[in-house]
Amino acid sequence: MSTSDRPVAPLSVRDVRSWDAEADVVVVGYGTAGAAAAAEAVVRGASVLALERTGSWQGAAGSLSGGLIYMGGGTALQKACGFEDTPEEMFKFLMAAMGPGADEAKTDVYCRESVDHFDWLVACGVPFKATFWEEPAWEIPGDDGLMYSGGENAYPFDQIARPAPRAHVPRMENKRYGRKGGGFKLLEALAATAESGGASIRYDTVVDRLVVESDGRVCGVAAHQYGTELYVRARRGVILATGSFVYNESLLADHAPWMAGRPGSAVEAHDGRAMLMAQALGAGVKHTDACEVAFGVDPGLLARGLLVNAQGQRFMNEDTYAGRLAHAVLVHQANQAFLLVDQAGYDDAPVPDRMPFLKRPITWAAPSLAELEVDMELTGGCLEATVGLYNRHAADQRDPLFHKAARWVRPLEPPFGAIDLRNETLGFTLGGLTTTPRAEVLHVDRVPIPGLYAAGRVTSGIPAWGYASGTSLGDGTFFGRRAGRSAAAAGS
Amino acid sequence: MSTSDRPVAPLSVRDVRSWDAEADVVVVGYGTAGAAAAAEAVVRGASVLALERTGSWQGAAGSLSGGLIYMGGGTALQKACGFEDTPEEMFKFLMAAMGPGADEAKTDVYCRESVDHFDWLVACGVPFKATFWEEPAWEIPGDDGLMYSGGENAYPFDQIARPAPRAHVPRMENKRYGRKGGGFKLLEALAATAESGGASIRYDTVVDRLVVESDGRVCGVAAHQYGTELYVRARRGVILATGSFVYNESLLADHAPWMAGRPGSAVEAHDGRAMLMAQALGAGVKHTDACEVAFGVDPGLLARGLLVNAQGQRFMNEDTYAGRLAHAVLVHQANQAFLLVDQAGYDDAPVPDRMPFLKRPITWAAPSLAELEVDMELTGGCLEATVGLYNRHAADQRDPLFHKAARWVRPLEPPFGAIDLRNETLGFTLGGLTTTPRAEVLHVDRVPIPGLYAAGRVTSGIPAWGYASGTSLGDGTFFGRRAGRSAAAAGS
Repeated sequence: MSTSDRPVAPLSVRDVRSWDAEADVVVVGYGTAGAAAAAEAVVRGASVLALERTGSWQGAAGSLSGGLIYMGGGTALQKACGFEDTPEEMFKFLMAAMGPGADEAKTDVYCRESVDHFDWLVACGVPFKATFWEEPAWEIPGDDGLMYSGGENAYPFDQIARPAPRAHVPRMENKRYGRKGGGFKLLEALAATAESGGASIRYDTVVDRLVVESDGRVCGVAAHQYGTELYVRARRGVILATGSFVYNESLLADHAPWMAGRPGSAVEAHDGRAMLMAQALGAGVKHTDACEVAFGVDPGLLARGLLVNAQGQRFMNEDTYAGRLAHAVLVHQANQAFLLVDQAGYDDAPVPDRMPFLKRPITWAAPSLAELEVDMELTGGCLEATVGLYNRHAADQRDPLFHKAARWVRPLEPPFGAIDLRNETLGFTLGGLTTTPRAEVLHVDRVPIPGLYAAGRVTSGIPAWGYASGTSLGDGTFFGRRAGRSAAAAGS
Repeated sequence: MSTSDRPVAPLSVRDVRSWDAEADVVVVGYGTAGAAAAAEAVVRGASVLALERTGSWQGAAGSLSGGLIYMGGGTALQKACGFEDTPEEMFKFLMAAMGPGADEAKTDVYCRESVDHFDWLVACGVPFKATFWEEPAWEIPGDDGLMYSGGENAYPFDQIARPAPRAHVPRMENKRYGRKGGGFKLLEALAATAESGGASIRYDTVVDRLVVESDGRVCGVAAHQYGTELYVRARRGVILATGSFVYNESLLADHAPWMAGRPGSAVEAHDGRAMLMAQALGAGVKHTDACEVAFGVDPGLLARGLLVNAQGQRFMNEDTYAGRLAHAVLVHQANQAFLLVDQAGYDDAPVPDRMPFLKRPITWAAPSLAELEVDMELTGGCLEATVGLYNRHAADQRDPLFHKAARWVRPLEPPFGAIDLRNETLGFTLGGLTTTPRAEVLHVDRVPIPGLYAAGRVTSGIPAWGYASGTSLGDGTFFGRRAGRSAAAAGS
């Protein structure tokens, strides 16, 4: 999908002969952020038209996702599962884990209003089951409602803030990994809320340009549906909610070249075009190098092994959020990694329900580390040095080098195995438009661009450079809702 | 220095009552890139007015620098020093070392025309002495003219391209580190060329905004000199040559948060304002997370030791370009590093002439690694594991882990010492405006913004994410010259 065929530069309203449709608020992109924006704008009394380039909200990245939503500070679900949490502890965690460069003002309001946000989702009809899933995992296999998803209970974050699980997962039976999970239930409820409130949705409609008045105010969009050009007037505001730019190779080369040529954990509509449309109006962008990263290995297996780089060195506690490990592999370790295990650890690791393939088979096995190094074509002695140092302290159930929790620490013993995890990462981009806590898009002058709002991964939001699973649906719905509120309240 | 006091949004020419000055080409910033642009534009028959916010070109970052200029492909100086080089080998090195994300089109023309660029500098009066400085160093202490500056002769680049030294250093006797070095001689010659050709310079003049015609063409600038507003018309084009954004903490937080709060290797005028002025016109930016990084330790000392992180692990061959090591320390190792040496290696390291402080004193010394670990508060056994593995292969003069050249490899023996290099990095930003090989500033639509050109560190140039000393003055002067040529040739 190229951005070069049609210009992204804004269109002057003088060049619009007539409007084909109009609404108080025009939402561009009808995924989780867009649906949250639409749902909120209609209850604020605004007429809403959402334009979505795919044929259904079921094609949105959020709908295809596992549906983790990062909320906390003492939600009803956290309480029902027996966890204490406060907005202050949540804030401390997010400022540490989402940085460097985390947005203090946005994180503050996100934490203070998180309990309200959970209640709003419930009121929208998002179902949650009040049970906690304890095992380290990328996603909850069954229909439990709460899990850890950012390394809150692992070093170093367990030293920074009191741990609490904050990934809230909509209840969904018979999940189908990567196709229908909690995200489907989330978006189903948000879309129903928006549409029962009166929002209109126009599918198969690609937005090409913003339309601006002579004073720079955004007053509509130019779009096309199949071969037909459409001009849609927005009386109060336009909300951009079009997702990341991970499917734009040219933008990846410019901003996050380590992601170029790699699989994207998103949908092809994530082409960054709306970010460019706003930049053409002078909008600022930030953290455009940042990315969410994952790889296909079960966190329960990771925690039981030693994750090493091409030099056979460990580089992070293996029991932290697995996305943090994958990010470190891609960004700091040249995408080279192996998971070293012993027979006992491998046998102990559970086979993840519905995702059994994440208990990866052993690539190389050997009765000694010296032989394993030869098979893996690593430097002679490197694994012996790594395991020797680890075992020395593991004998006391300690990991002073990287602080893996005692639960996972014991000396590794022969026979050994290793799993090849080189060049296996995939992800999506986190950077984007600079916005205020009210979801206004900021000009590089740091003043809002009149009539323009944005939420979700077209913006830089709660995840700045770091990430925790659930912060993307979390800030997409949270600031999507705020975008809907701001746009609905804007003078018309 | 804040960018918030005056807006960066463009000014419409309709709002300019009268022009206070005019020229065919207006150059914003009179450092190396700006002076090269001015020097080239005047010989192309254009009248030139350069606006510089400081009181003299001697205050420019390039003038205060060591003056390394990255050129090659077989310059007269390379030949006189006995080195063979070709544009193809130079291209292979730069595409590998300046990436990921190196700009192929710009790198291609930069290499193919590098011999010509050297000859042009000589014709401008930049003096070079045809002698080669062999020792690893940040800068040449004496008046030699050529050195290695990017790890060309170290792993992995020695496997990718035939090594050749390419840092050309203007001859300067009685250098004063950080105040008057090769950069002074470079800029002195360029300024003399520009001014003898007829360029006018206006100092103490801060450019605030670009002035645009109704069709978006840049036709001048709004500036101020002390309390007086000035409007300067550019009949053919405006060239931005204002340097990096390392002295803008807000932009650092948005784009390169690991640089925020750290010392900048630049001057305070590097506030990124001109980048924002162009972004306000829809200009694209790229690699805004990239940075040049250095730290205060002699490369000759580094090569003789083991550079380890907070876990006592090595992470790169210590004989590569020291800026690559410093960059890895800041970006990949959380700015934590120690240089481990033995007595023999420390004694063998030369005291750098004029920069004796770069042979850093030992912070901790101990007769054994076990004792050294205790003193350094590192994990017990981590240095023993690292040195044990290193010594095992060093006995054969090999370093299979990181491929340090045999010249520097021998087993370390007691007594040992370590130098504390934590949180010592400093640098400047490398990212900026997206430009063409003709130095036209590109809109996010990937078409040139009429009338607007840029060169030097306000752009993303030859260094994309990686760096070699000399590529900044190198591409600043090279694309500065091209900006001067393009602007002078633009229709008026």
